[in-house]
Amino acid sequence: MEKSALQIARASYQPKLPKALQGAVKVKEGAPTQSVDNQDEIKKLFPNTYGMPVVEFVPSDETNNTRMNVGIILSGGQAPGGHNVITGLFDQIKKLNPENRLFGFILGPGGLVDHNYMELTKDIVDEYRNTGGFDMIGSGRTKLEKVEQFEKGLEIIRELDIKAIVIIGGDDSNTNACVLAEYYAAKNYGVQVIGCPKTIDGDLKNEQIETSFGFDTACKTYAELIGNIERDCNSARKYWHFIKVMGRSASHIALECALQCQPNVCLISEEVEKNDMTLNQIVDQLCETIAYRASNGYNFGTVIVPEGLIEFIPAIGRLIDELNDLLALHGADYKDLDKKAQREYIISHLTPDNAATFKTLPAGVARQLSLDRDPHGNVQVSLIETEKLLSDMCEARLAEWKNEGRYVGSFAAQHHFFGYEGRCAAPSNFDSDYCYALGTSAAQLIANGKTGYMAIVKNTTASAEEWIAGGVPITMMMNMERRNGEMKPVIKKALVELDGKPYKELVANRDHWAKETCYIYPGPIQYWGPSDVCDQPTKTLALEQGK
Amino acid sequence: MEKSALQIARASYQPKLPKALQGAVKVKEGAPTQSVDNQDEIKKLFPNTYGMPVVEFVPSDETNNTRMNVGIILSGGQAPGGHNVITGLFDQIKKLNPENRLFGFILGPGGLVDHNYMELTKDIVDEYRNTGGFDMIGSGRTKLEKVEQFEKGLEIIRELDIKAIVIIGGDDSNTNACVLAEYYAAKNYGVQVIGCPKTIDGDLKNEQIETSFGFDTACKTYAELIGNIERDCNSARKYWHFIKVMGRSASHIALECALQCQPNVCLISEEVEKNDMTLNQIVDQLCETIAYRASNGYNFGTVIVPEGLIEFIPAIGRLIDELNDLLALHGADYKDLDKKAQREYIISHLTPDNAATFKTLPAGVARQLSLDRDPHGNVQVSLIETEKLLSDMCEARLAEWKNEGRYVGSFAAQHHFFGYEGRCAAPSNFDSDYCYALGTSAAQLIANGKTGYMAIVKNTTASAEEWIAGGVPITMMMNMERRNGEMKPVIKKALVELDGKPYKELVANRDHWAKETCYIYPGPIQYWGPSDVCDQPTKTLALEQGK
Repeated sequence: MEKSALQIARASYQPKLPKALQGAVKVKEGAPTQSVDNQDEIKKLFPNTYGMPVVEFVPSDETNNTRMNVGIILSGGQAPGGHNVITGLFDQIKKLNPENRLFGFILGPGGLVDHNYMELTKDIVDEYRNTGGFDMIGSGRTKLEKVEQFEKGLEIIRELDIKAIVIIGGDDSNTNACVLAEYYAAKNYGVQVIGCPKTIDGDLKNEQIETSFGFDTACKTYAELIGNIERDCNSARKYWHFIKVMGRSASHIALECALQCQPNVCLISEEVEKNDMTLNQIVDQLCETIAYRASNGYNFGTVIVPEGLIEFIPAIGRLIDELNDLLALHGADYKDLDKKAQREYIISHLTPDNAATFKTLPAGVARQLSLDRDPHGNVQVSLIETEKLLSDMCEARLAEWKNEGRYVGSFAAQHHFFGYEGRCAAPSNFDSDYCYALGTSAAQLIANGKTGYMAIVKNTTASAEEWIAGGVPITMMMNMERRNGEMKPVIKKALVELDGKPYKELVANRDHWAKETCYIYPGPIQYWGPSDVCDQPTKTLALEQGK
Repeated sequence: MEKSALQIARASYQPKLPKALQGAVKVKEGAPTQSVDNQDEIKKLFPNTYGMPVVEFVPSDETNNTRMNVGIILSGGQAPGGHNVITGLFDQIKKLNPENRLFGFILGPGGLVDHNYMELTKDIVDEYRNTGGFDMIGSGRTKLEKVEQFEKGLEIIRELDIKAIVIIGGDDSNTNACVLAEYYAAKNYGVQVIGCPKTIDGDLKNEQIETSFGFDTACKTYAELIGNIERDCNSARKYWHFIKVMGRSASHIALECALQCQPNVCLISEEVEKNDMTLNQIVDQLCETIAYRASNGYNFGTVIVPEGLIEFIPAIGRLIDELNDLLALHGADYKDLDKKAQREYIISHLTPDNAATFKTLPAGVARQLSLDRDPHGNVQVSLIETEKLLSDMCEARLAEWKNEGRYVGSFAAQHHFFGYEGRCAAPSNFDSDYCYALGTSAAQLIANGKTGYMAIVKNTTASAEEWIAGGVPITMMMNMERRNGEMKPVIKKALVELDGKPYKELVANRDHWAKETCYIYPGPIQYWGPSDVCDQPTKTLALEQGK
């Protein structure tokens, strides 16, 4: 495997571990826990994994030589650092007992069901230290939720003498990890299941999980590009750049990039939702800024748009909710119709308000809302070119304003969408260390007999030495939510909090950033050099922790 | 001005200078030179600046305290390192004589004509050391080519007591710099004009100019992103990524990125032209690779597409040439027609072959070829979404092949276009040093009384200490070319040479890269850390110089 100079140099980086994980550990247990909401229902659904305490690892004098084989699964979208969870897990189980073996299931949860796996030996694992991507074993989006899948998986688990499965995934995948843990516990199969908080979107976060891995690296990669574009924007002085960034269910990435780059505008989906804004109102606000800058001779600017914006516009959100339910219930009737018939089918089956909203949408967007769902049953919002939709609508609005004498200037737009550019970036020092610690924690949770837990690492704005590692019961983070027309127990998604410090920081500065040109250019992620440059956490994390 | 940690840390980087530029210098002159072609015509057009020798700076014992004010202009698209040309120039003229002053003309060549300028003092210049972008004074695309412009510029040159103008630009801007130099020389105005070789596209390169500045940083930034996408591609294993990269008139960027990242396919416009390939033939070749990989279970891949591809397809090239001429001659008749009438006008005025080609183009592409020209009179090829055009055509072709039983697989595409993401990146160590040396050279060319020269630095794959600095007469690089219907003296553009080592390296490996998955992940530009990682020149430069 041919490698770049950076790949070769980074291979020898030894991730930093929290003090408590450097030697033998014992478990310090907290009080019993409750789910964040719907306690009675969650408790009933998870009788064997509900109410367990949060645990923390502390140094111990007694070594634990547990003999255990472990299976690992990468689930869902790539996030920088996934390989380091695996290397951390590998190193720790081998340290506990050199006889221990690690098996990787290929291309996601489907690998467990289909018995598609490979043993991860030292020579394989060493190839992937501190690298981005999930290509060591691949990832996939199969949902583990059916008893037949669990039983099929058990066959290979027994064959390989696997004691525990570690599932690295986002909120949905960790929900499923908990369902699997509960099933194996209920059946007394003696198979543990541990989750790991992965998602570049940053929406898997709560009192216990300070940040999901990959968010740091992905945001810094996008911020590098946004900063480069801002610099171009401020040099050429003739374009408005509309930059969409990944983040379907929450605007954390957009917010973090804005805090790093200080663009002229950053839309926050959660704010749009709370203020019940329409698409037209968003466009009006944008045009106010564009017109103001033009009046000062600035016919240029940058706008950050979160991927999920469209879904958060309440009128459109209501429409999409009904569309999701409609397709879940009547998907088969709908699937084979042609485009025109699809449109008619949809309009005739929607409630009048939503049908009206559907009919007022620009044709292209209406069509995009009728496209295929992802395996989780959600609209593939990333297919909607929100950045172009917004700039087209701004162009039309500004032309009207020009006629009315409200706008004097010229408007030309450039569009960008950053997603795949950051999901597989080589992990920053932060993500390299954080993931390695998560993998080490996962190994210790298994060795200490835990199941239905997610590995966690806290105090992450301190130096890695001072980080606190442990586990949190997955049921603690659950509530009941409507998904594809059914109420389901799920991990509560973390949206951008409108009374949180990161958002307040944006609000405190955005008028100034809109009117003036206050761009900051973060530049590329650095692995060597001054610690200020290489080891800064995200602005979001620093603000949330009062740093 | 608020700054990122990287901006702050990089501000104190002291660019490395060639040994010969570290102290006082004297000029070593070579033999008289000839233009690369059309010697008689070029000589006639440039009687005062033709035939001058190539010069090299060598250390001298005699200090030169020339009192001189200098004006600087940034012309055309941004390229990483432009600010370092200015800081190098500034530091050197102040070193020669602290009384010397530097004036920056605002927003490009237009600033000279409109007398829009600012003095660049130490506090301003210090803010921009080792930064990307052209925002210190802005850039623009006004062409300096008329006597009125030259005379208007002279007024402010006299007012500010400017001895020389330095124009930082690509081939067109340097051609114009030479025209200006010739004019001022012919008039005996005593005003010198010096050019600097800038363009991320890498097409301003020849025996004397080893590389244009910005190429190194821009390619490394694009390669970072392409590598990240390749890693995602190889993890998710379900998409073909079509990645267009900047480079309208040559495929150097695409080629360099391919050498750095080893994608499955990299199209080279120059090869398409030489082999007289049609769009259909390109699509067929792509589909062969897609089908081959699918037959091995690989329904994923990456394709690099140079921005200028469409123009290089000979049939389309002939069409665009005629369109360019047609619009130059009949632009006024055409400009005010509506789209349909424009199309009819074009078809009726084209020669039959070109009209036929025009009619067979997909509607969207035909329309895009009818869009506005840039100020240099060229089709704005960046508006043509070649990456989508190609994947759409592949999708259609593969569907046919599937029916014929020639293809078994699934095809889904993602599209990317990288341009603005890299033009204003913070310069790599290479570009930081190279540009600083070019600025220093420019100052010495002025101090040594030269005009009509471009500043050059050679031996650039050696350490910066060993670089050789000097100047080359711009006329030496000229030939006569047809532009907008007229024969003009221009600097000969450097295309990818099909007998050159970089292209041969691609050809030697591409079958293997197409069939297997040999991705390399370069990662982000590093400024500190191992020299292998931080100070590598481009693969193109290393191969060309036999390293």
